[in-house]
Amino acid sequence: MNEYPKIAVIGGGSWATAIVKMLSENLTEIAWYMRNESALEEIKVNYHNPNYLSSVEFDVEQLRLTNDINKAISYADYVIFAIPSAFLSQEMSRLHVSLEGKVIVSAIKGIIPETSLIVGEHFHQTYNVPYENIAVITGPCHAEEVALERLSYLTIACQTEEYAKTISNCVSSHYIKAKTTDDIIGTEYAAVLKNIYAVACGIAHGLGYGDNFQALLMSNAIREMKKFIKKVHRMKRNINNSAYLGDLLVTGYSLFSRNRMFGNMIGKGYTVKSAQMEMNMIAEGYYASKSAYELNKQYGAKTPIINAVYDILYNGKDPKKVFRKLTEKLD
Amino acid sequence: MNEYPKIAVIGGGSWATAIVKMLSENLTEIAWYMRNESALEEIKVNYHNPNYLSSVEFDVEQLRLTNDINKAISYADYVIFAIPSAFLSQEMSRLHVSLEGKVIVSAIKGIIPETSLIVGEHFHQTYNVPYENIAVITGPCHAEEVALERLSYLTIACQTEEYAKTISNCVSSHYIKAKTTDDIIGTEYAAVLKNIYAVACGIAHGLGYGDNFQALLMSNAIREMKKFIKKVHRMKRNINNSAYLGDLLVTGYSLFSRNRMFGNMIGKGYTVKSAQMEMNMIAEGYYASKSAYELNKQYGAKTPIINAVYDILYNGKDPKKVFRKLTEKLD
Repeated sequence: MNEYPKIAVIGGGSWATAIVKMLSENLTEIAWYMRNESALEEIKVNYHNPNYLSSVEFDVEQLRLTNDINKAISYADYVIFAIPSAFLSQEMSRLHVSLEGKVIVSAIKGIIPETSLIVGEHFHQTYNVPYENIAVITGPCHAEEVALERLSYLTIACQTEEYAKTISNCVSSHYIKAKTTDDIIGTEYAAVLKNIYAVACGIAHGLGYGDNFQALLMSNAIREMKKFIKKVHRMKRNINNSAYLGDLLVTGYSLFSRNRMFGNMIGKGYTVKSAQMEMNMIAEGYYASKSAYELNKQYGAKTPIINAVYDILYNGKDPKKVFRKLTEKLD
Repeated sequence: MNEYPKIAVIGGGSWATAIVKMLSENLTEIAWYMRNESALEEIKVNYHNPNYLSSVEFDVEQLRLTNDINKAISYADYVIFAIPSAFLSQEMSRLHVSLEGKVIVSAIKGIIPETSLIVGEHFHQTYNVPYENIAVITGPCHAEEVALERLSYLTIACQTEEYAKTISNCVSSHYIKAKTTDDIIGTEYAAVLKNIYAVACGIAHGLGYGDNFQALLMSNAIREMKKFIKKVHRMKRNINNSAYLGDLLVTGYSLFSRNRMFGNMIGKGYTVKSAQMEMNMIAEGYYASKSAYELNKQYGAKTPIINAVYDILYNGKDPKKVFRKLTEKLD
């Protein structure tokens, strides 16, 4: 039954931990890289990641644990990146092994700040990875529910159908169903944009808007997302498929989404800096709104929600006033 | 400023009460019919509906309160029906005044059990109301948030644009924005079908499925709704507009939705009868699933979610088994 490829997972956060758990249902061996040495030790000794999804117990005999990214990547045919987009360049700067021939899988859901590119494009342009070797894993999928083995559906995007199917086989189990698509650009943009919309939902909530408005906002967000992605990469896609609409909903309606939480604080009057300090991290939607706003200058899609979030986060505009104006543009 | 028409609201529940509140922001006079005499007395004396949205205070000088449906209807040019669909025929049986020339507005969101028709079609076929005189009010809009004056968006559907605009003007205020469309069939079906999907969400929740699955279910539900409505009445419509997707989301994600609550009990193992007794009312989605299922026999749209709900509610099938099968059909 040696039908599974060699896979490395890059990252020690909750989504990386969830992906390792999914893979461990099928593969006899998985390389798992994370920077944090004490977390690695803890996994070796106590069989769980102390910082994320700590209820998940691993069989360490399945795991090639390492804090050397070169070891992990040289081992693998498929490399799944699941770290915050802001840390990717730093991690990649340590790399001295080649990526040639490897399938690079983005599970990052963010824009690379240095290049304002989505992860697939960034790997293509910066590391010469051909698009046929780039794949994307998207939800709707909270890592926490993977830990609980609650049924979740993933979409694996790759232009090379064989790779998409292989990844799909590797992550599927009694609680994970995976479908495939060739829309690597659209799925990755959807995963990025949804974080901006989750920030918008949070701001609305913080300002005192209710559930009726939240539903209205989501209905406008999915139409806006469709227009934006269509401008970036025109192809036949059903924006209501789970990788687009489903992913938007699970994030926008989640009270635990960091993006929504961040937006909520902004809506309640925190400054960007104080919200970030309070949360002790930076929400992906913060970077994403700037990148999407800048990028859209060349595309010119009508994106009133993205513009509103950008104006609040980067131009210091008053959330209350910006949202009052925004409500006039929604329907 | 006598630009507003004569309007009667039929019903004493929360949605009827919310609509009267909306109208009272603009009209100097509104006829309001309800059966419950003691509630009428209470409104006259204490200025609020004792049973629904009791925080809303009315200026009774604006209200022509009556428990004679003939009085209310003969007064009005526009008659807004906001009673449970199961009671419409009974109420209409008391009618001896003519509906001729009046605009009949459905705010009912249900299927008439006796005819298995949506309200607009029912009025057309049973009372000879021409389609040009039929209008529909849909959300996304919980009545409770209208009471709180939280910004909400309505869609007014009518083939006669002038009537749609008139109704829109009458309900609009600082907390209500209304748009118009001519899709009276699609908006009304959407309002009916969403209750079935809310029941499905409740069943899933009751069975222990999580937020990831809920998002997946909604993503499938909107695609299913689109197919169903397209078969019933083909026209150009954007299913992601707020009257369709927005209304689905506000109901499916609401913990207070009676349909979701009903489904939740079914998922937890209550029988249909005991769930209905416990709730002391019948969820619209219960009737709707039967009607939609029966109706779809002639249309043949692929509706696995509706079929699953129907099988559970009417064929006594085990929710756990039905949903396990359903999960294979979703993506």
